[in-house]
Amino acid sequence: MKIRIYYEDTDAAGIVYHANFIKYCERARMEIFFRNGFNFHEEDSNEHFVVRHIVSDFVAVAYLGDLLDVTTKVIERKNSSVVLKQNILRGEKLICSFDIVMVYVKNLKAIKIPDKVFEIMQNQD
Amino acid sequence: MKIRIYYEDTDAAGIVYHANFIKYCERARMEIFFRNGFNFHEEDSNEHFVVRHIVSDFVAVAYLGDLLDVTTKVIERKNSSVVLKQNILRGEKLICSFDIVMVYVKNLKAIKIPDKVFEIMQNQD
Amino acid sequence: MKIRIYYEDTDAAGIVYHANFIKYCERARMEIFFRNGFNFHEEDSNEHFVVRHIVSDFVAVAYLGDLLDVTTKVIERKNSSVVLKQNILRGEKLICSFDIVMVYVKNLKAIKIPDKVFEIMQNQD
Amino acid sequence: MKIRIYYEDTDAAGIVYHANFIKYCERARMEIFFRNGFNFHEEDSNEHFVVRHIVSDFVAVAYLGDLLDVTTKVIERKNSSVVLKQNILRGEKLICSFDIVMVYVKNLKAIKIPDKVFEIMQNQD
Repeated sequence: MKIRIYYEDTDAAGIVYHANFIKYCERARMEIFFRNGFNFHEEDSNEHFVVRHIVSDFVAVAYLGDLLDVTTKVIERKNSSVVLKQNILRGEKLICSFDIVMVYVKNLKAIKIPDKVFEIMQNQD
Repeated sequence: MKIRIYYEDTDAAGIVYHANFIKYCERARMEIFFRNGFNFHEEDSNEHFVVRHIVSDFVAVAYLGDLLDVTTKVIERKNSSVVLKQNILRGEKLICSFDIVMVYVKNLKAIKIPDKVFEIMQNQD
Repeated sequence: MKIRIYYEDTDAAGIVYHANFIKYCERARMEIFFRNGFNFHEEDSNEHFVVRHIVSDFVAVAYLGDLLDVTTKVIERKNSSVVLKQNILRGEKLICSFDIVMVYVKNLKAIKIPDKVFEIMQNQD
Repeated sequence: MKIRIYYEDTDAAGIVYHANFIKYCERARMEIFFRNGFNFHEEDSNEHFVVRHIVSDFVAVAYLGDLLDVTTKVIERKNSSVVLKQNILRGEKLICSFDIVMVYVKNLKAIKIPDKVFEIMQNQD
């Protein structure tokens, strides 16, 4: 998953605004599903992941025009939640790193992650 | 309606990112309803305004820390749509100006603007 | 230029937030330069385009997961400004359309558009 | 520090997009400085805080129209960094909670936090 940095991503300090990196992580997570033919608009929109916990390390800055990579790795799977490690890099250089716990919900209540959703994440692994 | 400019609002050119001004216009439109006790979350969420047309003039730039004013004036009312003039200023200085046509929809189909919604906009006038 | 719609792009009405389409137009304009090896970070960051005027028509809505196209066409060239037509489509369906006037500035003062910048836009034409 | 939730803050799941809460934390941090007459635009723009580390807990969801509170508490002060606890609440209800490490930089290199900056944060305490 490649992320290009546009003006909208940067701030007056001349660097990528820190909260935006967390958006890029979600883009990468969603692309895993898009690449597997998952159609969020046709699916039951009451069911989806919500982010419960994120540990974020911002180790270097990124700039306008950068082309960043986002990597996603499933660390642990539970009944209704999943633990991911996501890194954002520019070439070999680590920009920031995230440990993320996501919970699968229906109408905002935790439910077992459906097999179809599980398999897509496993294929990515 | 006062809008403070934070890092998130600016870009690497050191100024407010142009598309953000259009967000501030919507904040000001929504505050008219909030000030009148309108609860968007309790209301039928299938009914709301959508923006159909905007003419935007960006005449000056705004900076980190600026405290801007947004003015909203109803120019014309039709059955299912309304024409607004919104200006964004820093003190007396005009930063940008917008002519906006909004259509009231239910499930994304145009319907007559409800009287309750009309009255709130009239009070603002 | 393809734009994928993620959660960050949508709002509680279940559709793409209108001001975001204006960001996608800028992404498409910047990609023209990126594809031509233009490095915004290395270039004199005091020189760039600013958006002066936009006429926006929002004719249809877009949804989570959509893959949109942005087209960019130079309509008119002047000394320090350029008029563009940008359309956003889902397949053949027009979602929104923009007439955009951009001014080339150095330290936020209008200057003649440099030949190198002009040529990149011409190649795109 | 009050944060109103507008359409721009929500996503197609009908709730506030998680990364946006991290923006509200920064708004609250900046308001501490604005309330103390600090002018970011006039100050040396090469000097500012950057976010190094965030532990985020998202414990409840927020909705369109909500009026949230952001609290900020200095937990620990070091030479060039500071540890903050920020909570976002709707009334008494905790929505999310953040442990944040920020580093003071000049031209993106860590330097001692200036006394003037320290004092403003102390007054807030």
